[in-house]
Amino acid sequence: MQKNLTNSTRPPFASLVRELPSVVPFVPPEALERQSGKKIQIRIGANESTFGISPLAQKAMAEAVTEIHWYGDSECYDLRSELARIHQIRMDEIVIGSGIDELLGLIVRAFLEPGDRVVSSLGGYPTFNYHVAGFGAKLETVPYQNFMNDLDALAAKAVETGARMVYLANPDNPTGTFHSARALEKFMDKLPKDCLLLLDEAYIEFAPAAETLPLDLENPRIIRTRTFSKVYGMAGARIGYALAEQEIIRAIDKIRNHFGVNRVAQAGAIASLQDTEFLRHVVQAVAEGRKEYEQLAKKLGFTAIPSHTNFVAIDVGCDQKAAAIREALFEKGIFIRVPQVAPLNRCLRVTVGTPEERRIFAQALEEVVSE
Amino acid sequence: MQKNLTNSTRPPFASLVRELPSVVPFVPPEALERQSGKKIQIRIGANESTFGISPLAQKAMAEAVTEIHWYGDSECYDLRSELARIHQIRMDEIVIGSGIDELLGLIVRAFLEPGDRVVSSLGGYPTFNYHVAGFGAKLETVPYQNFMNDLDALAAKAVETGARMVYLANPDNPTGTFHSARALEKFMDKLPKDCLLLLDEAYIEFAPAAETLPLDLENPRIIRTRTFSKVYGMAGARIGYALAEQEIIRAIDKIRNHFGVNRVAQAGAIASLQDTEFLRHVVQAVAEGRKEYEQLAKKLGFTAIPSHTNFVAIDVGCDQKAAAIREALFEKGIFIRVPQVAPLNRCLRVTVGTPEERRIFAQALEEVVSE
Repeated sequence: MQKNLTNSTRPPFASLVRELPSVVPFVPPEALERQSGKKIQIRIGANESTFGISPLAQKAMAEAVTEIHWYGDSECYDLRSELARIHQIRMDEIVIGSGIDELLGLIVRAFLEPGDRVVSSLGGYPTFNYHVAGFGAKLETVPYQNFMNDLDALAAKAVETGARMVYLANPDNPTGTFHSARALEKFMDKLPKDCLLLLDEAYIEFAPAAETLPLDLENPRIIRTRTFSKVYGMAGARIGYALAEQEIIRAIDKIRNHFGVNRVAQAGAIASLQDTEFLRHVVQAVAEGRKEYEQLAKKLGFTAIPSHTNFVAIDVGCDQKAAAIREALFEKGIFIRVPQVAPLNRCLRVTVGTPEERRIFAQALEEVVSE
Repeated sequence: MQKNLTNSTRPPFASLVRELPSVVPFVPPEALERQSGKKIQIRIGANESTFGISPLAQKAMAEAVTEIHWYGDSECYDLRSELARIHQIRMDEIVIGSGIDELLGLIVRAFLEPGDRVVSSLGGYPTFNYHVAGFGAKLETVPYQNFMNDLDALAAKAVETGARMVYLANPDNPTGTFHSARALEKFMDKLPKDCLLLLDEAYIEFAPAAETLPLDLENPRIIRTRTFSKVYGMAGARIGYALAEQEIIRAIDKIRNHFGVNRVAQAGAIASLQDTEFLRHVVQAVAEGRKEYEQLAKKLGFTAIPSHTNFVAIDVGCDQKAAAIREALFEKGIFIRVPQVAPLNRCLRVTVGTPEERRIFAQALEEVVSE
């Protein structure tokens, strides 16, 4: 009956999309399980917080499920109101998204034309790079320097290429390293005057508060992104936010998916912000875990890169060794990641799990290394 | 300390975004409450299902909250697997999004270049129009004919303008009217051979199954979008899907936000699909409610437009009257919507609520009309 339709022409894709490669930023652990037929027992490869969520958030989210037939508030008013109170900023300096990943796409779309240059570290966050490619902008990269984002080189590259945007994760992923407010201020002074700094602060709650860059949202050259996926343990809820000058927020409001932030996530985020005790507990527990990983690395003759996040990158000295260890751990049901780009691919990136998870990981790593 | 930064240039927005107006597709009921200071008691204005969700979905979602610290599967494998089974199609003919709204944006982005023509009915879904504008395409519209999408006129407009895409909601929103498979097949024959039909089937479960267009996903000229927001009662969870030929799905996979679909929504959607009894119950209950609204309209001298959805558009004869009734109902704590574009703005669009909600609405409407 529809044969003549089936034989008809396929409508052409937009040229940008037609030319994109079929890549995904991350293969999920579920797909690794399906491909291998192996079940993951210890999931410490995606920096999810195995310390879970605040009991207040748990309660709020369970209640929200009973009202899930209502759309969430597209203005995320109550959550922005709470964030404004906590950060002592204005509500119109905040936009909520379904995770930083969505916000990165919106920010790229709001600022970049096809062909525009963007600067980032070589081996930086793949999802940002995915969005840059997806909107036709061109990524220029600078190598890490001692596993630190090389601020001087990033600024120089931005000047050299006339970049419209620099992406910087601070604390960094996948290395865990951190630049202080002082270093970032110097860095911004060196950027071209019309270049935007996209500062991804997904892990900021784990960094020393006294050294983090203060919020100055009157500065129209910086956007900060934050998330409930890490310290608050809500990765599966998909909620994050961006902080920026009002006119930038207004621009993102022109293109964002207004009803895209789900009701359960909004309820959980509001409750999470109110549980400062839980936040302190997770930050403290993670700091202890980082110390354990450092000692473990030392014991095995490896180097733990000093981390200001909820994971530790352990430099095992060579990329083949890192890959082999990752595979052997996976055989034992332990999921960690190894970054794909040199020299980061010498590192095991391991999420700080619970004490029990760390014990199992440590034992497995020792076994694997001794074999 | 950062004064010199504050005074620096604002990085320019992308030209497309700079030129967009600051409009939102829908003002949420929560904002109406905040603006008016009035509390909504009966929320029957956004076609949310007040019949709630399946008990199986409720259970699955509550469990998912306890695992919310894990990201959801970015491949949505289990959900696609279940959908493939139910629709008897292939998994790679399905893509999951955080609601149809997100998918509409992705489809527009995948197919349209700035300046490309798109055809839709005048007064059709505002969120689709929002995405069309957001990616720089140009909307061409055709008036409704007796509150039906005018298929002949839509096809003629597509031919006349060389449109690359036609958007059609079937069953329609905001009118509730429906075109049979036979009518749609004739329609597709009249479209330009390289024009994509974006068939939004958000309300398809409420339409007569025997008359709905069969799935033929080898046809590369049609994409169908569906949702868990309506009959399944999961609007606040943000999850929907698109069905299309594999190569189209692959293109959307190149640009979608891979970890964007939250874990709670995925769990709830899978469970919802398994509860066919609940589905039948809601469809039946909504059909009863539609009849009540028809009788109510008749009693008051209005015309209920025959609906194949979970709402009824009641034509009160004049736009000022419709606006006045909407306002008076809002004063009584009842939230309905009146479409903004003529001649649809003569209609009250009322979601089919529970028997109790319908009783309160009927009483309020009678009072308002008699005043």
